[in-house]
Amino acid sequence: MKSYAAPSAGRASGDHESLRLWLRLFTSASLIERRLDRALKREFGSSLPRFDLLAQLEREPEGVRMGVLSERTLTTGGNVTWLVRALEREGMVARKVAAQDRRATVVRLTAAGRRHFRTMARAHERWVAEIFGTIPARDRRTLHTLLDDLRTQLRPSGAAE
Amino acid sequence: MKSYAAPSAGRASGDHESLRLWLRLFTSASLIERRLDRALKREFGSSLPRFDLLAQLEREPEGVRMGVLSERTLTTGGNVTWLVRALEREGMVARKVAAQDRRATVVRLTAAGRRHFRTMARAHERWVAEIFGTIPARDRRTLHTLLDDLRTQLRPSGAAE
Repeated sequence: MKSYAAPSAGRASGDHESLRLWLRLFTSASLIERRLDRALKREFGSSLPRFDLLAQLEREPEGVRMGVLSERTLTTGGNVTWLVRALEREGMVARKVAAQDRRATVVRLTAAGRRHFRTMARAHERWVAEIFGTIPARDRRTLHTLLDDLRTQLRPSGAAE
Repeated sequence: MKSYAAPSAGRASGDHESLRLWLRLFTSASLIERRLDRALKREFGSSLPRFDLLAQLEREPEGVRMGVLSERTLTTGGNVTWLVRALEREGMVARKVAAQDRRATVVRLTAAGRRHFRTMARAHERWVAEIFGTIPARDRRTLHTLLDDLRTQLRPSGAAE
């Protein structure tokens, strides 16, 4: 994700309070996302969408269907196929035909993939801690609470969007 | 953007404070992004990347080079070309060869494109105000301040990432 140039961003003042708040939120998330993506590239030759895909697989030892993977991950359909193929060539994931439905493909993590993911996950968490460690613990707690409130409003019934 | 499944998201507790905070931030931004994208689709047959591209052009009456556009906008290289072509067919943007460099293409908003963008921008700001209007004004101000602090840390010298 890059910079999201919402309208009148430069001119927004006074009564454009919510718009400016949204841009702040969006920019912060984007900057962190980009920083993590770059760190994954630099340290592991990986990326955030790739890391996200491995994270999805790590939670489901039985494997995940291709269709479900594209629904859940950061990447869009075609890219998921491409990513899975690349990870398969590197021995990180394995594909097989689904037992119940022969038209579906199930993807799962190999032992090597699991080790690779865990190494990245430790580094990922360290980077996140470094980023948020720059603001005082009390502010982190306040930020967490406020974002929780916002999310509750965004998901009134707790349902997934 | 979809759900970013960072590692151990479900299991994170206690000492994974920063990781949980990051997921909260990321999820909030993603949910709002998705909501705006859907509203733009529903009301205008548009999308957030498309809106973002028009917003970039609205700021530069002289036009923007294709290369610069892909750097600045939400969409990646190939998609920008595709988006610009679609907008050109609809009469929203016009392309011409750059005066200084005949290999470069400059894209600018047409009068119809400007009108279309402004209509969407008003709706976009109204939706953003509705979303953030669900939390108290005092909390909005606190959230704004905390996100400002975070962004300052992310851009130590104020330089663009």
